[in-house]
Amino acid sequence: MPLEAVDLRIDAGWVIPIEPAGALPAHSVIVHGGRIVAVMPTNEVDLRYRAQDHVTLPRHAVLPGLVNAHVHAAMSLFRGIADDVPLRTWLEAHIWPREGRFAAPDFVYDGARLAAAEMLRGGITCCNDMYFFPQATAKAVLELGMRAMLGLPVLDFPTTYAADADAYLRNGLEARDALKGESRLSFCLAPHAPYTVGNATWERVVTYARQLDLPIQTHLAETVAEVEESRERFRASPLFRLHELGATGPGFIAIHAVHLTPEDIELLAVHGGHVVHCPASNMKLASGIAPVAQFVARGINVALGTDGAASNNRLDIFGEMRLAALLAKVATGDPAALPAQTVLAAATLGAARALGLERDIGSLAAGKKADVIAVDLGCIEAEPCYDPVSDLVHAAGREAVTDVWIDGERIVRERELTTADTAGIVARARSWQERMQ
Amino acid sequence: MPLEAVDLRIDAGWVIPIEPAGALPAHSVIVHGGRIVAVMPTNEVDLRYRAQDHVTLPRHAVLPGLVNAHVHAAMSLFRGIADDVPLRTWLEAHIWPREGRFAAPDFVYDGARLAAAEMLRGGITCCNDMYFFPQATAKAVLELGMRAMLGLPVLDFPTTYAADADAYLRNGLEARDALKGESRLSFCLAPHAPYTVGNATWERVVTYARQLDLPIQTHLAETVAEVEESRERFRASPLFRLHELGATGPGFIAIHAVHLTPEDIELLAVHGGHVVHCPASNMKLASGIAPVAQFVARGINVALGTDGAASNNRLDIFGEMRLAALLAKVATGDPAALPAQTVLAAATLGAARALGLERDIGSLAAGKKADVIAVDLGCIEAEPCYDPVSDLVHAAGREAVTDVWIDGERIVRERELTTADTAGIVARARSWQERMQ
Repeated sequence: MPLEAVDLRIDAGWVIPIEPAGALPAHSVIVHGGRIVAVMPTNEVDLRYRAQDHVTLPRHAVLPGLVNAHVHAAMSLFRGIADDVPLRTWLEAHIWPREGRFAAPDFVYDGARLAAAEMLRGGITCCNDMYFFPQATAKAVLELGMRAMLGLPVLDFPTTYAADADAYLRNGLEARDALKGESRLSFCLAPHAPYTVGNATWERVVTYARQLDLPIQTHLAETVAEVEESRERFRASPLFRLHELGATGPGFIAIHAVHLTPEDIELLAVHGGHVVHCPASNMKLASGIAPVAQFVARGINVALGTDGAASNNRLDIFGEMRLAALLAKVATGDPAALPAQTVLAAATLGAARALGLERDIGSLAAGKKADVIAVDLGCIEAEPCYDPVSDLVHAAGREAVTDVWIDGERIVRERELTTADTAGIVARARSWQERMQ
Repeated sequence: MPLEAVDLRIDAGWVIPIEPAGALPAHSVIVHGGRIVAVMPTNEVDLRYRAQDHVTLPRHAVLPGLVNAHVHAAMSLFRGIADDVPLRTWLEAHIWPREGRFAAPDFVYDGARLAAAEMLRGGITCCNDMYFFPQATAKAVLELGMRAMLGLPVLDFPTTYAADADAYLRNGLEARDALKGESRLSFCLAPHAPYTVGNATWERVVTYARQLDLPIQTHLAETVAEVEESRERFRASPLFRLHELGATGPGFIAIHAVHLTPEDIELLAVHGGHVVHCPASNMKLASGIAPVAQFVARGINVALGTDGAASNNRLDIFGEMRLAALLAKVATGDPAALPAQTVLAAATLGAARALGLERDIGSLAAGKKADVIAVDLGCIEAEPCYDPVSDLVHAAGREAVTDVWIDGERIVRERELTTADTAGIVARARSWQERMQ
């Protein structure tokens, strides 16, 4: 039988496909035309494939690219500008005034480049963004070669990006029209939160979402104050209010979901919504602890997100995996809560499902897009390695990511971005810092 | 005025001395004879000093070496061997049986080398260890050039190291006698825990501690079960029982201190004991959340520890700083709890105080030993840098540590250990893994 010519084979110490669970020792990932052709034992590859490019990583784990299911990429320019304050103060005294002065396409472009560079070096191949001027974010992520879902932001108050709900929706849909040929981009509607968007606008968002088949992402039940205010104003929890407005369903992405009642959880489970758990941001802002183990037990799909670097201050899904696991254990009193495989699945396939991209990304399976990362488990910090999945979540950090491929294209090679000059990105970040300080 | 000849000057983007709080931009650390001579503005150095070695780090923060105030170094060989189980099961089903088969000087030596290499590369210049065969640990840390306090372990049941309390104490004191000329080593007594050491042995430990002027470290109130058992058997909390036995005082190091009553906290505050907070281990084993913000408010000195890699699975004080800050915020509902400067102080000067070493280490001040680390804040993950202290705790990880000096000796140079062959250390770890699996 003649050998099949393919673009790339990656021979790994372990391949971690996500489905099935666990690690396959001495396996290879075969890539052609930007897609995965096969995952197979390394010692069988020579019998079937002749690869143009051959990468050998005997002490690495090779796995699907991580998906950051909630980020405000451009806000990386605010990293560490205001720690140790509560959410409302943080927004009203620190973030919103600066956004009012500086948020513009050039700011968003430079911030998103910084964010994308950080994410790619940390093994994140796809993100779900929510920020003003999504076309500027799109330009940044496409230049760096990253995959992204762009949330088209909607608010009921004016910003530098739009004057009113009409303008937000119009700007967002224009961005989508302009970019819809880009295979690495997808879109969702992003009404900011129940407390910043009124019923009339929510209804329009729902109508557009149904007509255009777009998911809806929103910050939901992030703080106790938000839930109390909703009960007072609307006689309903934030989630029940949005449900009555028609927003829930399999395309509904609830970000944070910290303060859900048992009825909320049931509603989300029955209607097929997704949760994006952001443990670092929820802890740093003292928002609370989302009942993630309950979500998982009830069959709700869970993804992980970093939130923006202004409230985290890292765009690091390795960090979020570890935090999610540790926090669930201590919050439930059960050391078996959220085992490593569960958080790794949330950070890959769970996030892909939340974004509606699970047919293309989130696991290593024949036919999926070749979004693949390699993590060095041969470093002193991760040895000995009894269980590569445990090592990925609990021992290795994002710095152990050596190589990243998106659509089979090598975006990070031995820790260096191939698609951008990081020194230039840093220089731009510093110049914004000087202006904002 | 003639220039003073000194061994080393380190010019830094920021020097973070710990006392006073905050970061000093464009400052230098001057080192001679293994000690810090001065911390001063870089532009004044040439007027006073001529340095043999001159290191220029314009985008780095330079700060005192971190102190890991609780570790079982040799247990790095168990990293990730048993995740997702409760403390007692973890000890009784996984750790103790393997220790019974394998714990011996060669195991301890190889494990401690692995641990020391990991710690040094992560900016930890001193640790407080608790494990069997402390002479083997001493050999490992001295070869790698690390500073350590060795806990001399005491238990009331036999292990491969000692048959009974007499033998533990004899072995420990022999180790101390053999090693007391080593300037980088210090010693404390390390009765394992209230529940594994009976009253008679505690009394002997206290007597030795007073006679030999040794601190006492012990695991304290780590789990609810421990506290309940103590109340049942001794009609007292673990801390009150130890207090009645004479163990408390300024040389008392309470590790974990998760489940303390208000009376316990008051007792600790009044008698000057120290707490070693180990957030990752407490979360991973679901032991609980130590009331660290209360300790700080009550003036109790707090240090940070990693615990062993078997229950963490990282020996990473950067990680513990970040976790301590995040966990305190979400546990108290106060986003201002444990600001970055507080956790950084706990990881340096607080830990030095806990170990009784604050006259020599823990801050950058003239006269102290030159245990100094450099952290690169110019990487894409830490930019822009509005506040270097925030960046150290919340954005940079241990991988940003580029250089480490102990007694002015450069132990890590641009991420590489100068004192050992890391490949050899990893090879030994793998050979132990093969035997233990």
